[in-house]
Amino acid sequence: MNALKGACIIGQSGGPTAVINASALGAIQAALQCEHVTHVLGAANGIEGVLNERLYDMVQEDPEELELLKYTPASALGSCRYRMADPSVDDADYRRLLEVFRRYGVRYFFYNGGNDSMDTCNKISKFMQQSGYECRVIGIPKTIDNDLYGTDHCPGFGSAAKFIATSCMEVHQDLRVYDKGRVTIVEIMGRHAGWLTAAAALPRTVGARAPHLIYLPEVAFDPEQFIQDVKEVQCLTRNCIVAVSEGVRLANGSFAAENFQSGVVDAFGHRYLSGVGKYLEALVREKIGCKVRSIELNVLQRCSSHLMSATDVREARKIGSYAIRFALQGHTGVMMVLERVSNRPYMVRIGCKPVSEIANREQLVPRTWINKRGNDVTDEMFEYLLPLIEGEVPYPTQNGMPVHFVLDKTIVK
Amino acid sequence: MNALKGACIIGQSGGPTAVINASALGAIQAALQCEHVTHVLGAANGIEGVLNERLYDMVQEDPEELELLKYTPASALGSCRYRMADPSVDDADYRRLLEVFRRYGVRYFFYNGGNDSMDTCNKISKFMQQSGYECRVIGIPKTIDNDLYGTDHCPGFGSAAKFIATSCMEVHQDLRVYDKGRVTIVEIMGRHAGWLTAAAALPRTVGARAPHLIYLPEVAFDPEQFIQDVKEVQCLTRNCIVAVSEGVRLANGSFAAENFQSGVVDAFGHRYLSGVGKYLEALVREKIGCKVRSIELNVLQRCSSHLMSATDVREARKIGSYAIRFALQGHTGVMMVLERVSNRPYMVRIGCKPVSEIANREQLVPRTWINKRGNDVTDEMFEYLLPLIEGEVPYPTQNGMPVHFVLDKTIVK
Repeated sequence: MNALKGACIIGQSGGPTAVINASALGAIQAALQCEHVTHVLGAANGIEGVLNERLYDMVQEDPEELELLKYTPASALGSCRYRMADPSVDDADYRRLLEVFRRYGVRYFFYNGGNDSMDTCNKISKFMQQSGYECRVIGIPKTIDNDLYGTDHCPGFGSAAKFIATSCMEVHQDLRVYDKGRVTIVEIMGRHAGWLTAAAALPRTVGARAPHLIYLPEVAFDPEQFIQDVKEVQCLTRNCIVAVSEGVRLANGSFAAENFQSGVVDAFGHRYLSGVGKYLEALVREKIGCKVRSIELNVLQRCSSHLMSATDVREARKIGSYAIRFALQGHTGVMMVLERVSNRPYMVRIGCKPVSEIANREQLVPRTWINKRGNDVTDEMFEYLLPLIEGEVPYPTQNGMPVHFVLDKTIVK
Repeated sequence: MNALKGACIIGQSGGPTAVINASALGAIQAALQCEHVTHVLGAANGIEGVLNERLYDMVQEDPEELELLKYTPASALGSCRYRMADPSVDDADYRRLLEVFRRYGVRYFFYNGGNDSMDTCNKISKFMQQSGYECRVIGIPKTIDNDLYGTDHCPGFGSAAKFIATSCMEVHQDLRVYDKGRVTIVEIMGRHAGWLTAAAALPRTVGARAPHLIYLPEVAFDPEQFIQDVKEVQCLTRNCIVAVSEGVRLANGSFAAENFQSGVVDAFGHRYLSGVGKYLEALVREKIGCKVRSIELNVLQRCSSHLMSATDVREARKIGSYAIRFALQGHTGVMMVLERVSNRPYMVRIGCKPVSEIANREQLVPRTWINKRGNDVTDEMFEYLLPLIEGEVPYPTQNGMPVHFVLDKTIVK
C-alpha cells in the first residue's frame, strides 16, 4: 500500500446511463469505509462543480438512501459537457483546480465518464504531476455507446443493450399480429460505433427471426443496396424489421439522413432535422410503396433503469469500488478497465490502463463481426453481447413506480 | 346454470396491448376445463380467421407453454382490423359465420378487442338471435387507450400507463443532469381520450416535479397559451417536461399538428407526416428559442410486457376466465366490465353489460379531472390511476431476454 491521507472528489460527466450511479455508489461506499480518505466529496455537475466549488459532503447522505443510487438512472450528482482547455495554451482552469484541491486537501480525484472525461483525466493528471502536487487521478469508464478504447466493454452498455434487445423483441411481437406486409425501422443510438445497434439482433437468440436487417456505422451505407435488402426480406416474410444506427454514413462520409434533411423545411421555414429512421421510412415509401413506420428509441435507451442488466450493475458498482482500491495502491493517470477472461463461464478481471493511451481513441465494431454484405452481425457478436445483458434487477417501488435516489445536497464550505 | 354443449371460438382483434394474451389465457384455460365446451378454438387473426376457417385447436398447445401467454405482448393468435358490414345492407359475412359456427358446432364466441370489436360482437349477436341459431357472444374488453364505455377501466390500460409513468420518471432523471434549461416534449398515444397522457403525471407521486405541463385531447389546444405555459414553468425551473397526447386538437377541431405538417415536404416532395411532439418542438424553438427536444413513446407503450402492471395482468386474466363462466350462465350480447368498488383497499367487481349500450361510444376523461387552465390533471385522476399500475410482474427469461409464447398453430380441419 502506498496510501495518501486526504479528501477525495467523485464527479460524473457526459450523457446519462442506467448504471453511472452504481459506479458512484461503489466509489462512495468504498471511500467512506477507507481510513485514508478524510472526506468524500461529490462534485456538482462534474468538473464544473470543482471549478465552482460546489462540492457535496457525501457522509451526510443517509446510507440507506444511498443504496437507491443503484436503481437511479442518469447522474445523481449532475453532469456537464465542459471541455478543459489544452493547459499549454490556457492553464487557468488547472490552476483553479489546484487551488480547490489544496483548499480541501484533495488527494484523490475520480471522474466517471466517456471519452471526453478521460481526456479531462489525462490533462488533470499531467498538470498535477508537473505542478508537484500529489493527487491520484483515476477515470471510471461510462458510456452506453461502448466506444471507449482499452476496455472489453463499458459499464452502461449492457443495460442499454438489454433495453434495446427487449424492446426489439416486443416490437417484433407487436408487428406480427397483423397479416399484412409492413417495414418497421428502429433507429438506435451510436454516432460512431454500432455496438448498441448490434444488440438489436439479440431477439434471434430466443426464437424471433427479427430484426432482419442491421446497419452499423462501421460500414458505408448504400441506400440502393438497402432497398434491395428490404425487397429480398419481403420475398421471405410479410414483415421486415430493420435496426439502424443513427450514425450510418454514406460512402462519401456524410450522415445518411443529411441529404434527405436538407430538403425538409417546417412550417416556420426552418430546416427540419430528422433522424435516419425517418429518412429510411420515406425511402421505403418512395421506392417500395409498402406500409412503413419508424421508431426512435430515443433517450429511453440510456435511462431505462427499470430494465437493467444485472451483470452491468454488478460490474459498474465493482469498478467504482476498485477505483478507490487502485488509487490507494498508488495508481494515477489511469482508467479502470474490464478484461474478459472467459465467456463460459463469463468472467472478467478489473484492471487499469494509462488514460493517455485511451483518451481520444475509439473502440469500433470489428469489420469481421459484421457480415460481408454489411447488413447483419456475425456469431462473434452474439458471443460478445450475451453475457453483458444477463440477469434482471428487481428495483424498489412505491405506488407501482420506481423509487430513485434524492441527493441531500449538503454543500461543503 | 344454463349451459349449452358445444365448441367455443376465442378471437383477438385490434391493436396490441401487453395483456391481451393474459385475457386469452384466462378464457382458454377456463374453457379447456369446462365439460360443456367440446372444443376450444382460437381464431387466426380475429374474425378473419373465422370467415376463412383458420381455427387453431387450443387443446394441442402445451399447457406449460400456454402459461407464457401471460408474459407475451400483442395478440398471439393474430389480430385484424376487419369491420363487419351492416347486416341489413350486406349479410354475406354473417351467413358465412353461421355456416362456420354450424360446421364446428360453435355455441360460444368470445371476442377480445376494443370499440370496433364490440360493434362486431353486437352485430354477430343480433344476427345469430334473428337466425334462431343459439350462440352466446361475449366481448372481452381490451385497449390501451382506456376509451371503452361502460367499464371503470380496460385491461391493457394499466400496463401502458405504468410504462408511460416509469418512462417519464426516467426521462425526468435524464433531463435534470445538466444544469441547462431545456424543454422536453413527450408525445403519448390516445387519439380521442387522454387517459394515457394523464398517466405521465404519476412521477409526481414519488417526488418528481415533472412533468410540468400535461395536455389531453379533451380540452382544445391553444398554441399561444402553450407557449405562455412553458414560459411560466421556465420562470420556476430550468428544465420543463411537457406530456402531450397525440390527439390534441385546436378549437376548430383540427389536429394541432395538421397545419404544421401541411408546410413540411420531404426530399421526395411528399408531405411529411410528423406528430404533435415534433410540432411543439418546432413551436418552442421558434417562439422561445431555447433548447428543446421531443420524444415519441411510440409502440413501446402498448407492447412493453417487460414492465406490466400486476393489477392489470391479474384483471385481464380474470376477466377472460369470467367470460367463460358468464357465457355458461347464459349471458350473451354482453361485454365483460370492471366495476370499481373501492380505492382503499382497491377492489373491483367483474360484471357484464349489453354490448349494444357500449359499442360506438367513448369514455373520455371528465372535464373536472383536468385543471381549469387545461394544462394538468387533478387529484381525482391520481386516485383513479394509482391502483391500476400497482405491482410488478417478474417474467421468465433466457439469455437475459424475455421468453414469449409461440403458437403451435395446429389448424382444425
